Amino acid sequence: MTVDLIDLTQAIQALINDRDFAGVLETTTTVNSDELVSVLERLPTDDRAIVYRLLPKDRAIEVFERLDPGLQSDLIHGLQDAEVAAIFADLDPDDRVWLLDELPAALAPQLLRGLSPKERQLTSEVLGYPKGSVGRRMSPEYVSTRAEYTVAQTMERVHRRLDDAETVYTLPVLDDSRHVVGIVGLRELLKAAGDQPVSQIMSRASVSTAYQSAESAARKCADLGLLALPIVDKETRLVGVLTIDDAFRILEQGETEDSARQGGVEPLRRPYFATPLRTLVSTRVVWLLVLAIGATLTVQVLSVFEATLEQATVLALFVPLLIGTGGNTGNQAATTVTRALALDDVRPRDIGRVLLRELGVGVCLGSLLGTLGGTITALVYQPKIGLVVGLTLLAVCSMAATIGGIMPMIASRLRVDPAVFSNPFITTFVDATGLVVYFLIAKLVLQI
Amino acid sequence: MTVDLIDLTQAIQALINDRDFAGVLETTTTVNSDELVSVLERLPTDDRAIVYRLLPKDRAIEVFERLDPGLQSDLIHGLQDAEVAAIFADLDPDDRVWLLDELPAALAPQLLRGLSPKERQLTSEVLGYPKGSVGRRMSPEYVSTRAEYTVAQTMERVHRRLDDAETVYTLPVLDDSRHVVGIVGLRELLKAAGDQPVSQIMSRASVSTAYQSAESAARKCADLGLLALPIVDKETRLVGVLTIDDAFRILEQGETEDSARQGGVEPLRRPYFATPLRTLVSTRVVWLLVLAIGATLTVQVLSVFEATLEQATVLALFVPLLIGTGGNTGNQAATTVTRALALDDVRPRDIGRVLLRELGVGVCLGSLLGTLGGTITALVYQPKIGLVVGLTLLAVCSMAATIGGIMPMIASRLRVDPAVFSNPFITTFVDATGLVVYFLIAKLVLQI
Repeated sequence: MTVDLIDLTQAIQALINDRDFAGVLETTTTVNSDELVSVLERLPTDDRAIVYRLLPKDRAIEVFERLDPGLQSDLIHGLQDAEVAAIFADLDPDDRVWLLDELPAALAPQLLRGLSPKERQLTSEVLGYPKGSVGRRMSPEYVSTRAEYTVAQTMERVHRRLDDAETVYTLPVLDDSRHVVGIVGLRELLKAAGDQPVSQIMSRASVSTAYQSAESAARKCADLGLLALPIVDKETRLVGVLTIDDAFRILEQGETEDSARQGGVEPLRRPYFATPLRTLVSTRVVWLLVLAIGATLTVQVLSVFEATLEQATVLALFVPLLIGTGGNTGNQAATTVTRALALDDVRPRDIGRVLLRELGVGVCLGSLLGTLGGTITALVYQPKIGLVVGLTLLAVCSMAATIGGIMPMIASRLRVDPAVFSNPFITTFVDATGLVVYFLIAKLVLQI
Repeated sequence: MTVDLIDLTQAIQALINDRDFAGVLETTTTVNSDELVSVLERLPTDDRAIVYRLLPKDRAIEVFERLDPGLQSDLIHGLQDAEVAAIFADLDPDDRVWLLDELPAALAPQLLRGLSPKERQLTSEVLGYPKGSVGRRMSPEYVSTRAEYTVAQTMERVHRRLDDAETVYTLPVLDDSRHVVGIVGLRELLKAAGDQPVSQIMSRASVSTAYQSAESAARKCADLGLLALPIVDKETRLVGVLTIDDAFRILEQGETEDSARQGGVEPLRRPYFATPLRTLVSTRVVWLLVLAIGATLTVQVLSVFEATLEQATVLALFVPLLIGTGGNTGNQAATTVTRALALDDVRPRDIGRVLLRELGVGVCLGSLLGTLGGTITALVYQPKIGLVVGLTLLAVCSMAATIGGIMPMIASRLRVDPAVFSNPFITTFVDATGLVVYFLIAKLVLQI
């Protein structure tokens, strides 16, 4: 069957106008690569870029090699075009995942090179790396070398890139198909003889994929003390590098956000005194309102037990102490687990182990505080009130530590920032359940 | 008057045995430098090091130059001696400050070179840099150059130090008296012609003094994106460098501690699952107890108002909501200000400005929440109760934001870690005062 290429080209343009990208993708599968190249040649620059970007990765590599060099560079410009970028940015995230296969590793850095940070941001939508991924923060301006090159050849490459490379102090070492096979520092190059092959002096490379979160890649870079971490595609082909100063900026931003959320405020985007009062208020008021609305739960719980309270007003005296201790215990657990998650000491799937550990810690803390608090209360007030307070402390601490420990785990499983879910929410939740426990124990012990 | 050098030597040895270091210092002022050199020659290695270390800086420079080279190196070994280090480590901090003048900048890095991290830790006591200062974390293994050297001469220096220097990518540029006059990167050296003087390609250097806190130096290094920050003495003479990977480690440790303290736990020193349950409990129990003891204040406040509570049990219903909102508002302010302090956006002396801003924020938040909460309560319960709740929310929010904002400021003025003082303490404090305000307003409005 022969295909009329002119008809096909028009059909594809119509599908693009209708934004039916799935249809475009399907149509391209009906023709062979040579025919596809002819179609691409006939399309205007923007449409050509869109069709090309919708090809599966293997096909994209094949087609790119068959394009003539002028058209190759034209295609790259098309992919950098603001309007094309806007089209892909508008894609529904789910569509984006199945429609946009990974771009060939040879193309990805070329697409990003020479762009301003703003343009780069835009173009990274075309690359398909998700928001918050290191693919959006990496630099394409690296200097790489090959395992079989000599030190002298490599130094020549370094000298050529002294002006524009992001860093020349760490060089990823590649094989013929751009796979990262090692890493070599400028220091090692200076130490070695000029005719030595790079393979003899390179060391094993740690890498991150472009799809990983920027924070985890940044932490890897910083923890290993690397000046630059190679960023690779799913087949470990080099697409960029993350330098340590960028890694630091990513981590710093993450810390500021975590710290803010832990205290129930939105992070400020500028220095404290440069932030208008209105903004300070608005970073706090929403959280405060949400928490206050949550706290109306405690009012409702207490109304339920109002009769009990009237019979024994003394019970009201211990309400702030008991819910405060519960809140503190929950906060402690949440803080520890949130930090452990941020440092990758604990992974989301460890939820069962964390639950058991925190329950253990909570029971220990509750036994200690319960015995102490119960005894003192028994001496100052009455033995029965002491029993109520002691038992409540035991129950509240065990419950609070467990909830505080697993809340951040649940958050990170739901891919929500664990710090958002943690301290203020836990406090509110623990407050209400703690009150229920308190009055149930009181009714049981005091028989009212 | 001639001095009998043998008598003098014996007198000094006796003073050292008595640990009368002020006496040693005083005795050395009675003789001229030539005589002092003779005395030093007569002393055993350890005592020689002790006497030398007690000399004022200018005198120490003068004397060191007059010692013969063998004795100079012997003196350095003496200052590195574990026993000598132990003696200076035992000094009372106040004594240390006035007794130990800064060591000459030429000597400081020499003292630290070639030592293991543990030995270096010990020897830094001899240097006199306070705990937590960058002087204790810097590396003496830097490569420096001179402004008048050529690029070729500098590259020769780099090549000689490829094996042992901490970094060869950033070189401080010094003048004749070791003052830092600039900084030059290996990249700039590679770009320049071999006969160009360093002064033509160097750029202005940012430095920190060895006495500054490690965290502030680390932040400077990271914020400026420097691979190495020169560390200088009080006269801007180079004594070491802080590399970016060490800077990162210092900041990371600081963050972990801040985050832990903010949640009321002691930082874990190892990964979560590697920490025994006993340790998890002990990192939390002390804080929890302290906070619980603080919370007994709320029990006392409530006992004072027990009669009021008996007359209007309905007041008890709003206790958790009111103190919870106060605690949240206080935490928000504390979190924002603590972070701003950590980022150097706010300095300890800005306490007045912070107080005013936070009072303003608190009044805004209190007005919003008070109006809303008061209206709803008035509709659900009684108008008078609504008035009480509304006014209390206004008062508690204003007070909590102010206290939350200035507590970290006070802590950093007292040179206590602001994060220690912040969230949990504020909550407890705000709880108790909030209750007093609540019942006073209630008594006034309800006339009971």
